[in-house]
Amino acid sequence: MSLLVVGSVAFDSVRTPFGEVEDILGGSATYFSTAASYFTDVNLVAVVGEDFPAQHLNFLKSRGINIEGLEKQAGKTFRWKGEYGYQLNEAQTLETHLNVFEAFKPVLPASYKEAEGVFLANINPELQMDVLNQVRSPKIIACDTMNFWISGKREALLKTLGHVDILVINDGEARQLAQEANLVKAAKAIRSYGPKHLIIKRGEYGALMFNSQSIFAAPAYPMENVFDPTGAGDSFAGGFMGYLLNTMNFTEENMRQAVIFGSVMASFVVEDFSLNRIRALDYKEILNRYREFKQLTHFEEPEDVFNP
Amino acid sequence: MSLLVVGSVAFDSVRTPFGEVEDILGGSATYFSTAASYFTDVNLVAVVGEDFPAQHLNFLKSRGINIEGLEKQAGKTFRWKGEYGYQLNEAQTLETHLNVFEAFKPVLPASYKEAEGVFLANINPELQMDVLNQVRSPKIIACDTMNFWISGKREALLKTLGHVDILVINDGEARQLAQEANLVKAAKAIRSYGPKHLIIKRGEYGALMFNSQSIFAAPAYPMENVFDPTGAGDSFAGGFMGYLLNTMNFTEENMRQAVIFGSVMASFVVEDFSLNRIRALDYKEILNRYREFKQLTHFEEPEDVFNP
Repeated sequence: MSLLVVGSVAFDSVRTPFGEVEDILGGSATYFSTAASYFTDVNLVAVVGEDFPAQHLNFLKSRGINIEGLEKQAGKTFRWKGEYGYQLNEAQTLETHLNVFEAFKPVLPASYKEAEGVFLANINPELQMDVLNQVRSPKIIACDTMNFWISGKREALLKTLGHVDILVINDGEARQLAQEANLVKAAKAIRSYGPKHLIIKRGEYGALMFNSQSIFAAPAYPMENVFDPTGAGDSFAGGFMGYLLNTMNFTEENMRQAVIFGSVMASFVVEDFSLNRIRALDYKEILNRYREFKQLTHFEEPEDVFNP
Repeated sequence: MSLLVVGSVAFDSVRTPFGEVEDILGGSATYFSTAASYFTDVNLVAVVGEDFPAQHLNFLKSRGINIEGLEKQAGKTFRWKGEYGYQLNEAQTLETHLNVFEAFKPVLPASYKEAEGVFLANINPELQMDVLNQVRSPKIIACDTMNFWISGKREALLKTLGHVDILVINDGEARQLAQEANLVKAAKAIRSYGPKHLIIKRGEYGALMFNSQSIFAAPAYPMENVFDPTGAGDSFAGGFMGYLLNTMNFTEENMRQAVIFGSVMASFVVEDFSLNRIRALDYKEILNRYREFKQLTHFEEPEDVFNP
């Protein structure tokens, strides 16, 4: 099944306590597409500048990602520069240059319009809605957003959320969107805006998925070496949506497995800079790490210790 | 089987965004004993002042807790005053009056010396060692500590840790003790100090248990109403150790179940001030919440989605 993603393709410059890199391949749509490409067909919509090298295009194609919708425009590619401290939980943004991304108007190639799944990465909610309006009859729609849009484009964001099945955001964004400190209450409020499912990403603490029936708590994989957290959230979303499109099964049980596949992809991506660790994963590595998540969380039913 | 605990019995004054109470029953040994009393026999060692009312003693006795080792001394009972903000994760201590606790020298009644299990709550590590020296041949020993002892009595603490099977501390304390920001690395270092098992409490993010074989990640129960987090860590330890003493089974599988029973007791205690919520729990409530933890974390084995 085919999965459409719209978002950014960027050059990142990143400093962590373990090293520093400049102008490496990054962007929400890049991480998402690469992670999802292990599970399903991906159609990428984004924009790059004239400085975007063939080498990166070839990499995306080598992952089987359809880049017909990756526009090349006059000007420079979107650039982001950030830094992480030892806690590695939140980046401090040092520079953002939107460049060609500033006037980006996503136009879907005809072949993209039949996509069964859509992921609206973190972009202007008006553009998210523009993209949705171009897709014929998607079976499942997920989106991401950020503090900048929650405060600056709240009405447009609420409109987009009215058309979305799954919202994937971090805990700070959930609290801000619902204007509520308690996450369980915040989740109720957010689900009343439209999305039947809410996934709250909590970095090193894992993820929570809320729906009308239940809450699912997935841990993050305890890592001895977190090298660079950039892209973890988008890779999570890519693994999650990729698995859902692979199986086209939206039961609670299967969505929980999708959350674990998302967590697996995020756990790989943080082991190196850029997409290096997920450029050429082996399927066995992915399944083995899934099993490690199972081992990490498994416990037996309670015994009735009170009446021995 | 009998479980010895040494720690504080105190009067707490607590302010949270939801209310304020003065001089209510608190203290690490009180929370621990009460939580553990649902699972096993508890022998309490602590000190109170002349102001400690019969009503509280009667409550402890009503839970079947042996208070022969609860000394009453001239002077006032230990008092603590703290405040929580909306995040509810960490208390700000406003006042600490050690009172009779300052010169506390725990002396075990003869009947306590045969205890099969020992929990050394967060007190001076020299006193923790004094208590251990008075117990004949315990099968399992766990302890807690805090930043004050990690920085102020490091040598004495390391000596105590050399005699302890399980250390139960929070993530900040683990990082400080190991002088290492990464928790997986910190856990390795701490286990090299003595404890074969390390449990790291992470408040609303649950707990991690490390041993030589594996890591276990337990979530916290997502609460819609956290009323007062005071005593959550000690109630966790009480449920954990109580279950271990009930079963006397120290396999990895059973210790994971113990972590969940600890998490269950902690999830109850935060629902009200003081010990109010765990004064008279029904065994069914405990088992039902355990099952809710199971439901919260359960997911199936991976399917081989890569070769459909």
